[in-house]
Amino acid sequence: MATPKNIGFVLFEGFELLDVFGPAEAYGIRDVEGAFRLVMVAQQAGLIASAQGPSAVADFGFADCPHLDIILVPGGIGTRREVDNPALISWLRTRAADAELVTSVCTGAALLARAGILDGRRATSNKRSLDWVISQGPNVKWVLEARWVEDGKFATSSGVSAGIDMALAIIARICSKEVAEKVAISMEYEWHRDAAWDPFAKIWGRV
Amino acid sequence: MATPKNIGFVLFEGFELLDVFGPAEAYGIRDVEGAFRLVMVAQQAGLIASAQGPSAVADFGFADCPHLDIILVPGGIGTRREVDNPALISWLRTRAADAELVTSVCTGAALLARAGILDGRRATSNKRSLDWVISQGPNVKWVLEARWVEDGKFATSSGVSAGIDMALAIIARICSKEVAEKVAISMEYEWHRDAAWDPFAKIWGRV
Repeated sequence: MATPKNIGFVLFEGFELLDVFGPAEAYGIRDVEGAFRLVMVAQQAGLIASAQGPSAVADFGFADCPHLDIILVPGGIGTRREVDNPALISWLRTRAADAELVTSVCTGAALLARAGILDGRRATSNKRSLDWVISQGPNVKWVLEARWVEDGKFATSSGVSAGIDMALAIIARICSKEVAEKVAISMEYEWHRDAAWDPFAKIWGRV
Repeated sequence: MATPKNIGFVLFEGFELLDVFGPAEAYGIRDVEGAFRLVMVAQQAGLIASAQGPSAVADFGFADCPHLDIILVPGGIGTRREVDNPALISWLRTRAADAELVTSVCTGAALLARAGILDGRRATSNKRSLDWVISQGPNVKWVLEARWVEDGKFATSSGVSAGIDMALAIIARICSKEVAEKVAISMEYEWHRDAAWDPFAKIWGRV
């Protein structure tokens, strides 16, 4: 078996629970046969309170975080503060340059946008908060209707549960389609395989 | 607004991440307008490692846990050990007697079954692990094909992601259908409203 890929979940106060733990379930389930090592990282190691209340545990701070092959930036109300946090934004810019895959869920795309690394790229985000997200990255080619968008080494998903569908697509790419299907079945999850499926774009008046 | 209902998420080593954090996202999102207070509890307070690796934080131990209006018992590989943990089983039996609603996700039903509190009740669980779960509660009326099952004050869901659908059904019951729909839309989640929907029963040869 190949060396596990380090996937870093970037935590901050007010992160959205499911943005992190939906994909973490998929990347961490036994059906992926250890293809991924889950790394929880925040500016400082320790307990990080989610937007919903329960805390997650950052095992590493930015300074001592191991190399990340894949980065996952979640959304949540805390993104409104973190777009103005130069420590997080510059750390993201540096780590993204070294990563093979840079992903966001929900309004996490606003943090990537503020780091400037989505400029000229196609990307999407939460459909309710899209006006705010767009304002953080005027040079990004925002896609108004998509479950998730892949552009080169970047993959950005729509809101909250969309991160699970994108994680399954990435598992299909890195492991195999068969492994991704096993993961979805183990999670008893109805996987939306079509990146263009997005009923929420219409609900929020984006199309 | 009514007093928030305390919903206790019962953590143990090897709990399944999404069994806890899928429903926690739904019960904790702002659209429910503070109807629920999320309580993370384990035999001892502190960090509890999930089956996927990342830890959750138990704010309370069994001994100092506040009154729980609703109990949520997750599944995960740790249930294989916890069915033989008399401290957890007897605590569940006591707290379930005082709760208005007792719920499980995935193989969490095996823990309720071992506590004897599902005897004579209709219940369901993860479809892959169903033989083992049934062996833990021979007097339970196991339902082989269901996304979730409600019987009196008990509600048991199928595997992993099914806990989200059940949580939305419970939010619809306790808050309103409109609130549950708002929650699903905020999560950009395609809610399976039909408790009988269960394609995984066929995949695992249960029907």
